[in-house]
Amino acid sequence: MKTVYSEDHRLHHASAELNDGEMMPCFEKPARADQVLAEVERAELGPIIPPDDHGEAPIRRVHTDQYIDFFQSAWSRWADLGRSNDMLPLAWPPRRVQPRCPQDIDGQLGYFSFDAGAPITATTWQAVYSGAQVALSAAALLQHERQAFALCRPPGHHAGADYMGGYCYLNNAAIAAQSLLDQGARRVALLDVDYHHGNGTQDIFWTRPDVLVASIHADPRVEYPFFAGHADERGVGTGEGFNHNYPLPPGTAWAAWSQALQDALRVVAGYAPDALVISLGVDTFSGDPISQFRLQGDDYLRMGEQIGALRLPTLFVMEGGYAVAEIGLNAVNVLRGAATQKG
Amino acid sequence: MKTVYSEDHRLHHASAELNDGEMMPCFEKPARADQVLAEVERAELGPIIPPDDHGEAPIRRVHTDQYIDFFQSAWSRWADLGRSNDMLPLAWPPRRVQPRCPQDIDGQLGYFSFDAGAPITATTWQAVYSGAQVALSAAALLQHERQAFALCRPPGHHAGADYMGGYCYLNNAAIAAQSLLDQGARRVALLDVDYHHGNGTQDIFWTRPDVLVASIHADPRVEYPFFAGHADERGVGTGEGFNHNYPLPPGTAWAAWSQALQDALRVVAGYAPDALVISLGVDTFSGDPISQFRLQGDDYLRMGEQIGALRLPTLFVMEGGYAVAEIGLNAVNVLRGAATQKG
Repeated sequence: MKTVYSEDHRLHHASAELNDGEMMPCFEKPARADQVLAEVERAELGPIIPPDDHGEAPIRRVHTDQYIDFFQSAWSRWADLGRSNDMLPLAWPPRRVQPRCPQDIDGQLGYFSFDAGAPITATTWQAVYSGAQVALSAAALLQHERQAFALCRPPGHHAGADYMGGYCYLNNAAIAAQSLLDQGARRVALLDVDYHHGNGTQDIFWTRPDVLVASIHADPRVEYPFFAGHADERGVGTGEGFNHNYPLPPGTAWAAWSQALQDALRVVAGYAPDALVISLGVDTFSGDPISQFRLQGDDYLRMGEQIGALRLPTLFVMEGGYAVAEIGLNAVNVLRGAATQKG
Repeated sequence: MKTVYSEDHRLHHASAELNDGEMMPCFEKPARADQVLAEVERAELGPIIPPDDHGEAPIRRVHTDQYIDFFQSAWSRWADLGRSNDMLPLAWPPRRVQPRCPQDIDGQLGYFSFDAGAPITATTWQAVYSGAQVALSAAALLQHERQAFALCRPPGHHAGADYMGGYCYLNNAAIAAQSLLDQGARRVALLDVDYHHGNGTQDIFWTRPDVLVASIHADPRVEYPFFAGHADERGVGTGEGFNHNYPLPPGTAWAAWSQALQDALRVVAGYAPDALVISLGVDTFSGDPISQFRLQGDDYLRMGEQIGALRLPTLFVMEGGYAVAEIGLNAVNVLRGAATQKG
């Protein structure tokens, strides 16, 4: 399996996020991708190649122009005010308000985000632009390959059409899924196995039948991102029935997790997609510092085998995972498991 | 004019708020009320009396039970997790989501707030409970007095029926207005002269014709709270036409500000209320460290005279103002100006 990777992820290295009432070092950091890359090499998964530049157009197929335009100019406007800290928003639209996008940079930052955990640095845009190109380039590989791995960083699945949050700025998996449709796929399935609900992905495809979204994650009643990911959220309009959530309680181990996976894979198979995109977070790991599931190292091999057994053209897009020492082994275990099933 | 005041405001002294991407000392601090109290004494405005305890019921007339119950238990739940920092939320409901209240404390904190500028400390509830009693007790004075001053701290006008934000937790002015109705007033007008839009007050009375709300403030397109306060927000349903916003550009001085005031006072007079509540923020002052209007000390005297000229039973409720050295003089100038018109 080929891995697409860009060193540009290092251009995003934020200093702090708001957590437990104080600023603390970001759990999402460059060492995460370094570990995954090292394990891809050690395991001899396959060639590691740089991304091609597909430009902004495929990003703007998923994210609104207003959001992208804001993002591109955000740091320079912030710096023009004499500010040198990473950008963090301070206020959000209250309940019952139909918000209009303000003109002020602080107002816009709140308008285009849903938490205080996605700091923008001077070079964040370049980093996430390259991350999207990694996803797009790996998606393009599926024209000739059965499987591919987009080693994206930072992750993307919390980013909606017009908002950032949860370490996520551009929704790499959604951008890749849209590009597969634009290259001729009739239907794409997107399965999110990250510990956290992929609320951004759900938002992007909420009204659409051409991308089936399934997500296995911690119950939002007790876990971030809190406000989406309930089992009864199934899409609306022509998208109704094409969104499937599997919220699971803290402490869930492989036995219960894999039952949800089997059900999700049944749903995916029944959809008969032309391609499958996996939002590959491994923060389901028992040792993850900010998550509460109990998957073990070998479980990731089995996860990959079961995904691979669908024998669909499959793109793996890196999402979360914050146990840095083990993130590489766990992620590559999924890829190795899937590769054994390549038919 | 009598002033109602409680030392309990000191029980709310938060350490830091998120601003410009970093934690910084709160602009909203006990010294603000100390300065106002000192100036009330120096100017011999009238007796300073402690509040009576009106209980929780009148607070729950304005705020939802769910919100109050959360607030009362929030700190102990936070501390039970071993956390000792002031409580600050980290994630909010994204756009297009119909949020359900989560069970988790971090999720609930985001659900019940709209910014990262209203930290909850171990004794915040006691402080704001007393602040509401100050407002209620001053409102009760209007049964026998023409004017009264509720020296509330922290402020309240950003707090909605079920959310905190912008240093505000309980909407003292709204609680007072509701209590006046409950004591027999048929209609109450609430005029907010704070630099920032009183978004919480607007939210609370949005659908109601029995409280007319008028607010003169910085244009939300360029100033906090950003997402409410536009001129075309006029209420809905039976409340339509009973909400009046006067957004003004940064740099506004008395000439333009007082034109908005005259229009607002015409609207108030036309409503023929039984009582008037003033949300008295003096962060319109030219020297305010976080605001951009240009009112001068004597302007506050004229503001008070024009409000007093309506000759309505009038309750002044302290809101914002962060130029600590001048907050007392400016606030008391309004009260003195009003008192000269008492008829």
